Amino acid sequence: MPWALWPKRNDPKGGNPMSRYFSAKYANLTPYVPGEQPRDKHYIKLNTNESPFPPSPRAQALVAEAAAELALYADPTCKAIRTLAAERLGIDPEEILFFNGSDEALYYAFLAFCDENTPAAFPDLTYGFYKVFADTTGVPFTEIPLREDFTIGAEDYVNLRKTIFIANPNAPTGLALPLEAIESILKANPDNVVVIDEAYIDFGGESAIPLIRKYDNLLVIQTFSKSRSMAGGRLGFAAGSKALIKDLDDLRYSTNPFNINRMSMAAGIGALEDESYFRTCIAAILEARAYTLNALRSLGFTADDSETNFVLAKHPALDGKQTYLDLKEKGILVRHFDTPRLRDYNRITIGTTAQMEAFIAAIRQIMAERL
Amino acid sequence: MPWALWPKRNDPKGGNPMSRYFSAKYANLTPYVPGEQPRDKHYIKLNTNESPFPPSPRAQALVAEAAAELALYADPTCKAIRTLAAERLGIDPEEILFFNGSDEALYYAFLAFCDENTPAAFPDLTYGFYKVFADTTGVPFTEIPLREDFTIGAEDYVNLRKTIFIANPNAPTGLALPLEAIESILKANPDNVVVIDEAYIDFGGESAIPLIRKYDNLLVIQTFSKSRSMAGGRLGFAAGSKALIKDLDDLRYSTNPFNINRMSMAAGIGALEDESYFRTCIAAILEARAYTLNALRSLGFTADDSETNFVLAKHPALDGKQTYLDLKEKGILVRHFDTPRLRDYNRITIGTTAQMEAFIAAIRQIMAERL
Repeated sequence: MPWALWPKRNDPKGGNPMSRYFSAKYANLTPYVPGEQPRDKHYIKLNTNESPFPPSPRAQALVAEAAAELALYADPTCKAIRTLAAERLGIDPEEILFFNGSDEALYYAFLAFCDENTPAAFPDLTYGFYKVFADTTGVPFTEIPLREDFTIGAEDYVNLRKTIFIANPNAPTGLALPLEAIESILKANPDNVVVIDEAYIDFGGESAIPLIRKYDNLLVIQTFSKSRSMAGGRLGFAAGSKALIKDLDDLRYSTNPFNINRMSMAAGIGALEDESYFRTCIAAILEARAYTLNALRSLGFTADDSETNFVLAKHPALDGKQTYLDLKEKGILVRHFDTPRLRDYNRITIGTTAQMEAFIAAIRQIMAERL
Repeated sequence: MPWALWPKRNDPKGGNPMSRYFSAKYANLTPYVPGEQPRDKHYIKLNTNESPFPPSPRAQALVAEAAAELALYADPTCKAIRTLAAERLGIDPEEILFFNGSDEALYYAFLAFCDENTPAAFPDLTYGFYKVFADTTGVPFTEIPLREDFTIGAEDYVNLRKTIFIANPNAPTGLALPLEAIESILKANPDNVVVIDEAYIDFGGESAIPLIRKYDNLLVIQTFSKSRSMAGGRLGFAAGSKALIKDLDDLRYSTNPFNINRMSMAAGIGALEDESYFRTCIAAILEARAYTLNALRSLGFTADDSETNFVLAKHPALDGKQTYLDLKEKGILVRHFDTPRLRDYNRITIGTTAQMEAFIAAIRQIMAERL
């Protein structure tokens, strides 16, 4: 087919269409839309699940040292951070591999363990990027509906003959699957990789990493973005059998062996070394989360207990989107998803207790104005 | 074909073979092998074309500031650095896009502008990663031999109906094509993208960036690794028409929109702001390069004038590989490529004048011992 006759790409941004040189395989690509980062005024930012705390002082100090050594390539094997992280997790360095954010780890999992003959499967309500990764890598996919109560039904993931992606705890629901359910999914799909995306695991739920030696089809992905205050530092990792990790590493050496720069590596090492700072931050988030859930419920909101650093809440008398807009007007950003099952809700990142008190005060005002 | 019958991957590292879950499309993947980074002792490192100078103090200062703000995602549009770099280059911010090293930019160029129906073409002697990118992305490719004198013959790149990758100046030859030759290649391939990889352009040759508005099939890639002392910081960029850049940006938003972390972005901005430091470093390298070429030639070596921060040299009476080993024994690392057209040579990165004096002293010793 001549270039000019190719279908025009669906372009949600309404910009210029794809160039005549862009590979036809991207004709229907719809890029991911990250949470908004407006610069028009200062907001209390409760919309992209960042930490309200700066990275550990130890991380910051190691970054400053690394900055003086940028002229030299970083160690492409990432030996130092793999060794330290593996030690903390009770696994071997050959069972873990670092990526430029867990998004990159997920993208590589799609590249490595899915293809035209090995489709992907994931819940209908989950991290919105899975669908985009599948489209970008040319992988067919199936979305499996969450149950009515927004939980994942392990019984829906039996003998799928697909590579399975499950965020645990799940976003934007905040709900976690127990480890037995994860195990049942691993057992029910022995010939396919099951990727457990544990971006929020440090805030609740139980990590599947201890299972990597028991199930050679298990790949666990975590990130330093949320619980280690490093969203702007881009550091994520995958843990799995040595064979799966070697596949991913071969792919990394075939695309970008120096994917982890010296500064992110240094920040990650500092974050891992400063375990007490990490624990203090997590404790503060869990306290603020409990406060937020109590306050919302006492105001008539429905919100499940969350195992993450966010809550998903709706009010029977408030419109989801309008509440998002009202909050934005008051200088507070939360995340609203305008999709059928989610549009009544807002997803609210847990910040400091002071930030959450300001959020609750704003909600009270909105209720006074709207109800 | 059942998994078990798939061909075993060619594995140069001799490790365990691919897992049974790895996509069949990687059955013959041969990962890139970066230059060695031995840790057994301290070497004068003249093997991976790094800068002998630290990054600008301004870059280091901005990194330290960025480290305090890692909790928040970086701006995925990279507005600040795109605006500054575009201003320096005399182009628009929409004509430039940043990547996690120029390797990532090249990988995305293969993804975007090549496919099964649009093969790639590049010289037989050039950056070794092009071949790996093609294999990894499933793109057929043709290697076009350099002329006998190691120059690129523009007449070999006419109406190829392939996406063309040319390193200019080329590695490991150090030779540059004049801009008129680049233009003739652009004109002779109007329906295909021509990627000019200018990793070494700050050391010589003429950049093709001023041509991006004249040729909508031109994509120029540069890096901060060499001339900006940021090999460990991972920052590269692509410049081209707004349409080509939008294709790449849509692909970036479909794989890893936060590919540039806050610290690399800050270091890049600092490097761009400190133009006088940049010029001082370049001048020192060019002086050390002239010294090195003169000294090598006076010792009987053959070496072309170089437009890069390395020289490619051979001696009629010295074995290339043995000289590499002898230098390593003496604490100096250079790069030897054990391939038919290159095995008589060594590629020597230009360090400080003091480092190059040490290198020449070692060469004198080797000649005294071997000849």
